[in-house]
Amino acid sequence: MNLDYIIPNNWSIIEEGFNPDQVKASESLFSIGNGAMGQRANFEEKYSGPTFQGSYIAGVYYPDKTRVGWWKNGYPEYFAKVLNAPNWIGINVTVNNEELDLYTCKAVKNFRRELNMQEGWLSRSFVATLQNDIEVEVQTTRFLSLDLDEVGAIDFKITPLNSDAEITFQPYLDSGITNEDTNWDDKFWDTLNVSHENNQAFIQAKTMKTDFYTCTFMESQVYIDGKSVVTEPAFSSDSNLASFSYTYSVKQNETYAIHKFGGYTVDRNHNKNELITAAKSSLSKATTAGFVQLLENQKQAWAKIWDMADITIEGDVKAQQGIRFNIFHLNQTYSGKDATLNIGPKGFTGEKYGGSTYWDTEAYCIPFYMATKDQEVARNLLTYRYNHLEKAIENAEKLGFKNGAALYPMVTMNGEECHNEWEITFEEIHRNGAIAFAIFNYYRYTGDFSYIPEMGLEVLIGIARFWHQRANFSGQKNKYVILGVTGPNEYENNINNNWYTNYIAKWCIDYTVETIQKVKEGYGDDYKRIAGKTKISHEELAQWKKVADNMYFPYSEEKNVYLQQDGFLDKELITVADLDKSQRPINQKWSWDRILRSPYIKQADLLQGMYFFEDKFTTEELERHFDFYEPFTVHESSLSPCVHSIQAAKLDRMEQAYTFYLRTSRLDLDDYNHEVHEGLHITSMAGTWMSIVEGFGGMRVKNDTLSFEPKIPEQWKGYSFKVNFRHQIITVTVNQNETQFKLEGDKDLTISVDGKAVTISPNLLVTI
Amino acid sequence: MNLDYIIPNNWSIIEEGFNPDQVKASESLFSIGNGAMGQRANFEEKYSGPTFQGSYIAGVYYPDKTRVGWWKNGYPEYFAKVLNAPNWIGINVTVNNEELDLYTCKAVKNFRRELNMQEGWLSRSFVATLQNDIEVEVQTTRFLSLDLDEVGAIDFKITPLNSDAEITFQPYLDSGITNEDTNWDDKFWDTLNVSHENNQAFIQAKTMKTDFYTCTFMESQVYIDGKSVVTEPAFSSDSNLASFSYTYSVKQNETYAIHKFGGYTVDRNHNKNELITAAKSSLSKATTAGFVQLLENQKQAWAKIWDMADITIEGDVKAQQGIRFNIFHLNQTYSGKDATLNIGPKGFTGEKYGGSTYWDTEAYCIPFYMATKDQEVARNLLTYRYNHLEKAIENAEKLGFKNGAALYPMVTMNGEECHNEWEITFEEIHRNGAIAFAIFNYYRYTGDFSYIPEMGLEVLIGIARFWHQRANFSGQKNKYVILGVTGPNEYENNINNNWYTNYIAKWCIDYTVETIQKVKEGYGDDYKRIAGKTKISHEELAQWKKVADNMYFPYSEEKNVYLQQDGFLDKELITVADLDKSQRPINQKWSWDRILRSPYIKQADLLQGMYFFEDKFTTEELERHFDFYEPFTVHESSLSPCVHSIQAAKLDRMEQAYTFYLRTSRLDLDDYNHEVHEGLHITSMAGTWMSIVEGFGGMRVKNDTLSFEPKIPEQWKGYSFKVNFRHQIITVTVNQNETQFKLEGDKDLTISVDGKAVTISPNLLVTI
Repeated sequence: MNLDYIIPNNWSIIEEGFNPDQVKASESLFSIGNGAMGQRANFEEKYSGPTFQGSYIAGVYYPDKTRVGWWKNGYPEYFAKVLNAPNWIGINVTVNNEELDLYTCKAVKNFRRELNMQEGWLSRSFVATLQNDIEVEVQTTRFLSLDLDEVGAIDFKITPLNSDAEITFQPYLDSGITNEDTNWDDKFWDTLNVSHENNQAFIQAKTMKTDFYTCTFMESQVYIDGKSVVTEPAFSSDSNLASFSYTYSVKQNETYAIHKFGGYTVDRNHNKNELITAAKSSLSKATTAGFVQLLENQKQAWAKIWDMADITIEGDVKAQQGIRFNIFHLNQTYSGKDATLNIGPKGFTGEKYGGSTYWDTEAYCIPFYMATKDQEVARNLLTYRYNHLEKAIENAEKLGFKNGAALYPMVTMNGEECHNEWEITFEEIHRNGAIAFAIFNYYRYTGDFSYIPEMGLEVLIGIARFWHQRANFSGQKNKYVILGVTGPNEYENNINNNWYTNYIAKWCIDYTVETIQKVKEGYGDDYKRIAGKTKISHEELAQWKKVADNMYFPYSEEKNVYLQQDGFLDKELITVADLDKSQRPINQKWSWDRILRSPYIKQADLLQGMYFFEDKFTTEELERHFDFYEPFTVHESSLSPCVHSIQAAKLDRMEQAYTFYLRTSRLDLDDYNHEVHEGLHITSMAGTWMSIVEGFGGMRVKNDTLSFEPKIPEQWKGYSFKVNFRHQIITVTVNQNETQFKLEGDKDLTISVDGKAVTISPNLLVTI
Repeated sequence: MNLDYIIPNNWSIIEEGFNPDQVKASESLFSIGNGAMGQRANFEEKYSGPTFQGSYIAGVYYPDKTRVGWWKNGYPEYFAKVLNAPNWIGINVTVNNEELDLYTCKAVKNFRRELNMQEGWLSRSFVATLQNDIEVEVQTTRFLSLDLDEVGAIDFKITPLNSDAEITFQPYLDSGITNEDTNWDDKFWDTLNVSHENNQAFIQAKTMKTDFYTCTFMESQVYIDGKSVVTEPAFSSDSNLASFSYTYSVKQNETYAIHKFGGYTVDRNHNKNELITAAKSSLSKATTAGFVQLLENQKQAWAKIWDMADITIEGDVKAQQGIRFNIFHLNQTYSGKDATLNIGPKGFTGEKYGGSTYWDTEAYCIPFYMATKDQEVARNLLTYRYNHLEKAIENAEKLGFKNGAALYPMVTMNGEECHNEWEITFEEIHRNGAIAFAIFNYYRYTGDFSYIPEMGLEVLIGIARFWHQRANFSGQKNKYVILGVTGPNEYENNINNNWYTNYIAKWCIDYTVETIQKVKEGYGDDYKRIAGKTKISHEELAQWKKVADNMYFPYSEEKNVYLQQDGFLDKELITVADLDKSQRPINQKWSWDRILRSPYIKQADLLQGMYFFEDKFTTEELERHFDFYEPFTVHESSLSPCVHSIQAAKLDRMEQAYTFYLRTSRLDLDDYNHEVHEGLHITSMAGTWMSIVEGFGGMRVKNDTLSFEPKIPEQWKGYSFKVNFRHQIITVTVNQNETQFKLEGDKDLTISVDGKAVTISPNLLVTI
């Protein structure tokens, strides 16, 4: 099945023609969200064909009992599942008593779906012939309001084309929903109360175990040819369903429409006893504004986001569509307002993987949010980890570490580990390094040191302690080694001396020691507080340094490269180019042992390290390692192509950089990994952004100076992006001949372009 | 809780005093079996306290849907579970309408349980005061007949001591049973029919999915003071229960007894439509003989077994009890009559681990069965693997191997893999080596080469092909390496160049090439058949040899030892003696990553190899490796102490050998691993036998000659064992001063004792 059916368009995702085989994929691709909630692009009306129903509320999860084949000490007992929440979008439609259901219609024509990314709405239209031969035209528009983030709105229009018809809209709420992803078929929701008042209905339900109290609500208005129809709808309910019936005898070519407003109030934001009151308040705001005005507000809110976050690409519609799709979904997933939320790997588009926070946040997402939002957003993401520090210390204690060593979980929702595969949970410890790196990176980019004495230093100390204890001295090597890890390349497990892990471990210690000194010198009170709390001492720092200063890095004299891990050169070194295509993707074709003993790399590992710490390596070194490792890389992780695109651009290999760019930006749109029906790859979308801004644009911060080395793929006429650098906005526009810089702000800024200092002034275009 | 409550006794396992906390452990320890079926020592009467009910039929299993946290390609979809079968031992007893239940009695005194290993029966006696104040004395005896292996018999006697009482025996059959070990709470049994005829009742039931048809049956007779009471019992039944009621007004001090005969007929042995007919036939044989005669036959059958298999130890009751307990359970588990059966790790004493066949069979059990049974029994165990060769080839194909390479499953019931933990299933491939070694060992011991051209060579070729393909050439080492394996020491996963695995891989290839030549020379027709079937060629053999001749073995010049695997010396080499006791057993205290990066060894690994291939190493080499590795060995596998006992004895470290011997022989009796309630460690029991015969007795076969180097722990006055060597029986009796050899057979035999040839003649005692 070819899922490459999305019509290229600069601003929209468009599907034409109805194909039941595509429904689940489209439900993912056309997903909408507003940071506080999100949903797959399920149909409002009944659909009896294959579908994956999903509506998600940020921060509401369920701790499903862990499933394993063989239990290991230290596994978490519960795994936080992304939780399908009660359905509020449903509108059953009957036409002369026959239910409208695209799966059973006699014919469906002119089917078109559009996700308008510029304005933040989803629409659908079609002409369907029912089994009773009535032909109806349907047009729907739906969005989740950025303004009123507890509310979504639907405009559902139906027009009988070949006869009069009695048509009923039955908007409903349903808490009798299930999760795709469940281990023991447990019930996840407990419905507490179903009620209604006039045209409004409410279902109060709480999650089992976690006791998140929610109120799902709705209110509707119906129209004939745009004129409001005043009706007293019939109400019906059962233990987890509430519905109204709006029936009207519709004349041929008359349009019967319903505006449905619905959504959730949650005790994360309200007193749990006042959820209905809060729901009424939200509904009141929404209905007072009305669908049209709310939609207008939506367009303005998205215009504001785009104004800051947009990247334009000229001369390559697919590339343009790809980057906007990525930026759009990142903004739908995380708004940055709430330090208790994070960026789930599937956002609001599916349930797979569970949990909401991976090292992806620090390694890939923070740069995007840092540059396209107010710096408060990135700071919230860092604060999230500070808030989880105690739990990270407890987690490390469970695994035998002591004295305040912290190991952040591989996957989490509330700070507790919720992953259970020993080679990942216990061994993919490099995640700790990315969390420290993000602190460094935040300060480097924003110049805001305040986070460090306030919170970051404690995080760094916990992490440094972990690395100090995790390394051991090898008498044989006369160096410190780190045994039994999984690096970023998850196609190696339980390896010794993963170069990336050893490198970032050493870096974490060095950076922490240096930062302690800096805080001690500049922030005496904070230092005292932290030193008192953590009981660090000179002796302890000296012990850390001993480990950092004597860390082992596997190296091959013969190949003149660092080795990804001990023993890498014992493998059968057949490059991916020489691997039979029928064997790929290897993660679908090969057993795990075969993958592990192969040289194939899932995602950048050593090259990821050279990306983070590029100042420590010459371009010649990078090139040598790129040439050695990339030929063995299968890029079967969504996080691989973006880093390779950046590195290839740095090495002036623009054709390769462009190929990697397309692969990262259109991963889901072109369904490279045959899994888009499960949801989208949200966190790697930030990597796509990096591959343009840092890859092609060559943006870095060096010595407090924003610097660029702009390049452009030959396929493009030009591209542009904006970044927020220390409260000033810089627009960078690149074409085949020149680069233009424009500054919004109040003072001159000296940047570096291709290594030369350039001073730019507010609102004056500089062309280079 | 101290579970060291078994009373030392030369021939019996005895428990005195009733302790509900011990019930589950005793249910394991007092288990009975006859090779065709077996059962935990559950009470006949109702018991409402904590109990683990288990009755098992050889070869009847259930393929439970596999449970994993994260699926890997190549995992089996189903896992063969040892299946709790319908209960036929149940006899509910009511005394004046109150059910007898030891858990709710007012008082229980004189509780005594005995498993008489010499005679093969289990008894229990106690005096209980019911809530209604009636005091009853109960005596029960139960056994599973070796003669009639479909039948078990129970004698249940009850005597009211302080008043007359109306007593009812309600013997029943119950197919409404469950498995302790179930992944999805599936129903495992489908009851087809419940019926009765006169005093006989039958439940026909089949297993779900596997469709094993069984008939569970019973017939009872009641007695007053030993005199038969003719009654017409009331019958009642429901959809999975059949019961008779025998009520009698019993006078004070009169003894009311029931003889219950029951068991299973199975379509593994009968036409599935004739199971009731077969059951009637078995019942007729049993009731005609009667309980007393059947028990007499049982004693004689066990006497025969002991006559050949017994090991006596003088001056150390605990050691004596230990070895007999081991020999007894091995004989209860596997009789060797049926080449489709094998030796489950828990025998008929529990469900844990599932499957019936591990490498334990070849590495530990075959020597025991070879020496204490007719050689046909060991041959049946080899034939079992030959019969699974096709499935082993299919298994290897699933993992990417080709050209007839065979990888035998880690765990199996029917030849298919039923283990799913990637580091074991896919990587613990040394099991293939043990299967080849058993072929070599069988021929070495029995002199019967015929198995090899008939079956064994094909197995060897499949295995050699596997190793040839599994190794790869390391350009760096200029040698063949084997990457990504788990060795016998399962506290290392996904390691490179496990010495044991590399060694046995090379050995398999060498032995196969040599054996092909031998078959070619001596068994031309077989050779032609096999060569035609397997398409082996000189070129292929040359390729194998290239791998075998250039296999890499990790070695440390500095320590002068082979390394268990690449990188072993990078570990923090703290010996077990220096490890805080609170940390042990590490598999219950540490997370998996910590175990993996520690130097601690679960069971003999390198030393296991030096045990198999001892001729290739000097004693000095053995000693050096023992001294290096044993200090890091935690012996947390039941299979570890036996090999260490043998090696310590070889090195004349008798105190250490004795300690290891006690640990292996009393592992379950003294519950070293705090898990005896789950069942017994059956396969390691054969290792216990080896630790006496090969360890203390020093028995080997060298150049077709049986040889001994007898030693004796100073704690013992003497010990003796018998072995069947090439159809002659040799009895070896060792005391502190001398060793005696006695031969049963028809011709002289030259053996070697401490390196000197000694000729022994039938029935003449030779003392050395």
